[in-house]
Amino acid sequence: MAAMRLVNLSLVLRQLRVQSPMSRVEIADATGLHRTTVSNLMSELLERRLVREAGTEHAGAIGRPRRGVALHGAHIGALGLEVNVDYIAVHGTDLSGRALVERRFAFDAVGAGPDRTLRRLGTATTEAIEATRRAGAAPVGIAVAIPGLVDVGRGIVRLAPNLGWHDVPLADHLAAAIGSPEIRITVDNDANLSAFAEYLSGVAAGTPDLIYLTGEVGVGGGVVVGGMLHRGADGFAGEVGHLPVDPAGGLCGCGRRGCWETKVGLAELVRLAMPSQAYGLDGAAVPDPEERSAQIARGLGEGDPRMLRATAEVGRWLGLGGAIMANLFNPRVIVVGGYFSALAEWLLPHAQAELERLSVASTDGRCRFVASTFGFGAASRGAAMVVIKNLIDDPHKITTTP
Amino acid sequence: MAAMRLVNLSLVLRQLRVQSPMSRVEIADATGLHRTTVSNLMSELLERRLVREAGTEHAGAIGRPRRGVALHGAHIGALGLEVNVDYIAVHGTDLSGRALVERRFAFDAVGAGPDRTLRRLGTATTEAIEATRRAGAAPVGIAVAIPGLVDVGRGIVRLAPNLGWHDVPLADHLAAAIGSPEIRITVDNDANLSAFAEYLSGVAAGTPDLIYLTGEVGVGGGVVVGGMLHRGADGFAGEVGHLPVDPAGGLCGCGRRGCWETKVGLAELVRLAMPSQAYGLDGAAVPDPEERSAQIARGLGEGDPRMLRATAEVGRWLGLGGAIMANLFNPRVIVVGGYFSALAEWLLPHAQAELERLSVASTDGRCRFVASTFGFGAASRGAAMVVIKNLIDDPHKITTTP
Repeated sequence: MAAMRLVNLSLVLRQLRVQSPMSRVEIADATGLHRTTVSNLMSELLERRLVREAGTEHAGAIGRPRRGVALHGAHIGALGLEVNVDYIAVHGTDLSGRALVERRFAFDAVGAGPDRTLRRLGTATTEAIEATRRAGAAPVGIAVAIPGLVDVGRGIVRLAPNLGWHDVPLADHLAAAIGSPEIRITVDNDANLSAFAEYLSGVAAGTPDLIYLTGEVGVGGGVVVGGMLHRGADGFAGEVGHLPVDPAGGLCGCGRRGCWETKVGLAELVRLAMPSQAYGLDGAAVPDPEERSAQIARGLGEGDPRMLRATAEVGRWLGLGGAIMANLFNPRVIVVGGYFSALAEWLLPHAQAELERLSVASTDGRCRFVASTFGFGAASRGAAMVVIKNLIDDPHKITTTP
Repeated sequence: MAAMRLVNLSLVLRQLRVQSPMSRVEIADATGLHRTTVSNLMSELLERRLVREAGTEHAGAIGRPRRGVALHGAHIGALGLEVNVDYIAVHGTDLSGRALVERRFAFDAVGAGPDRTLRRLGTATTEAIEATRRAGAAPVGIAVAIPGLVDVGRGIVRLAPNLGWHDVPLADHLAAAIGSPEIRITVDNDANLSAFAEYLSGVAAGTPDLIYLTGEVGVGGGVVVGGMLHRGADGFAGEVGHLPVDPAGGLCGCGRRGCWETKVGLAELVRLAMPSQAYGLDGAAVPDPEERSAQIARGLGEGDPRMLRATAEVGRWLGLGGAIMANLFNPRVIVVGGYFSALAEWLLPHAQAELERLSVASTDGRCRFVASTFGFGAASRGAAMVVIKNLIDDPHKITTTP
């Protein structure tokens, strides 16, 4: 399916969630789409049983009656989950993208190891399936976001350095845990899924050339090129965390030196901003990163000079990495999430200045850093959106729903 | 036009250049393409008057006669030119890609400045048009390769740091110089055109995810993603020369520090390998780079220890840059041209080892450095191919030919 068409379909579905039934003309007016476009989209949505004809409507006292359409998919659920270094996040929606379940809990995935993490993920997923059902929708698909290299076709996590995972057949494990073979399971890279969420409905929605950066303990990247996720030859594109940016730099948890993550990961900011809170040179673990990030935001708000210096330093390295991406991909926007967005007000001015200084096309090829509005939830949200996309792409899946 | 279709079309055209007329079945056998594919391509080529029905052929004494097809476009010429720091190259072909004109001469474009360079380019182009005509083909298009950021739509060189050019309306100047308004003029980035040549007919032809690197005094990159040139939001993608790879590195000609070009450009290799031949710290000029490169190859062949150390050092930096690209684009192949390919035997083992050490997906996402077989002529060859591609994409242009 063409990317713009997907954007438009989700626009129409969201509008129908706000108000249903609506006539095609009303939808066109409300979404700004052309009437012919809306008619085309409606044919497709009707055919795929995602909307239904909803009787006739009289537009006031005069004029001929207009046929309305209403959302049919409120009973169809999509579940997105994210496993990260220190939390698991759940995002359940109906077909229109309306949030039905939203949850995030601390979980030390590194300490727990793959087996216990998979068991905890299985429990969380089963609970989310039940919660979605209680909210009136039957989940038809689950997507799981992982910070690492994923073999999407087979649902295997090939390598997730910050989790310490190698060749973990996540989809098979999860299928066994939930015991509902009719629910399709997808696994994908967290930054890819976040980039997809940003492209479809985020702060830069519809920008065909954009990059998304996760700012957590690890740093990942998702790349949208011409409105499509760019995966590369093996699906491993956008691995920004271990870009070699400083040959004289410190050791990274991966064993290399001067990886970008050692410059812009949350551990480094905490080390510079709150030396008493440092967690060892490898920066592998930052207990309660969201609280650390909030603590630094408070300090910055109060004008703490050490924190301001630390944020400027990390911001400049963020800009340097952004310049590498700008030179190579020439995107229009770099959306930053996680702690980067929580501290955007202080980080991004430094990052933007450095990006412009170091980009060859700085003046002609304007590339802006912008903060995601999804907070720490972009990946699980994007995961749920991928389930919906798979559903729209593949109408046969619809027949399995009630 | 889909990229694979273009590859197949050029395969068929090349085959018909070797032997004409041929039946569709013979073409299928000779090219390895499916017979249905060949039939489809033939319909398109006939419709666009690039091949013609060539009477009937009897396949031996028995069987029904087969209609043959023959190349129609031998009278159609395509001209590719390249302006680089110290030379101008010309590559003229007929529609099938057969070389009609090939020329390369030393020219100090930096010393000459834009105006004199444009005049020299105009003379060279006029001479090439005449030579192509003498060889029996009328040029219908000209493409010019430039080491810099190009506004392809308007034929303007926005920024070519190593030439010292800024906002040069190259297409307009050249059109005025040659005075043949029926010849369409295109301007594009040299590395993009080289990547295109590699994808269509080089050592890694048909690899859908590949990167091409120019190794000259400047270093440029062209990126093929899923069989398409990746240009980015403004057409400035693949600007590898000024990637910031060493914050503590030396000054670059562009005014920044530690650009990749200062590590892997020919000036740096000459500085390390032949200190008596160094040309100032900015590395802007290396007189007669091809001769320098040949000199170093001779030294390496004789086992000169200083040259071996220098090549190892530059090779490692080549690998580091390759790792950045591998992490971000996940290509299957990085084709290296210019002096990189001339010294491939000594450079690439070091580059490959460093690429694998620094790539996150080193084992799973196998990415190989390979040497281009086009020597210093990839860009002008790619330029001629783009003219042919434009011609095939846009049949209206055919009507202007004799």
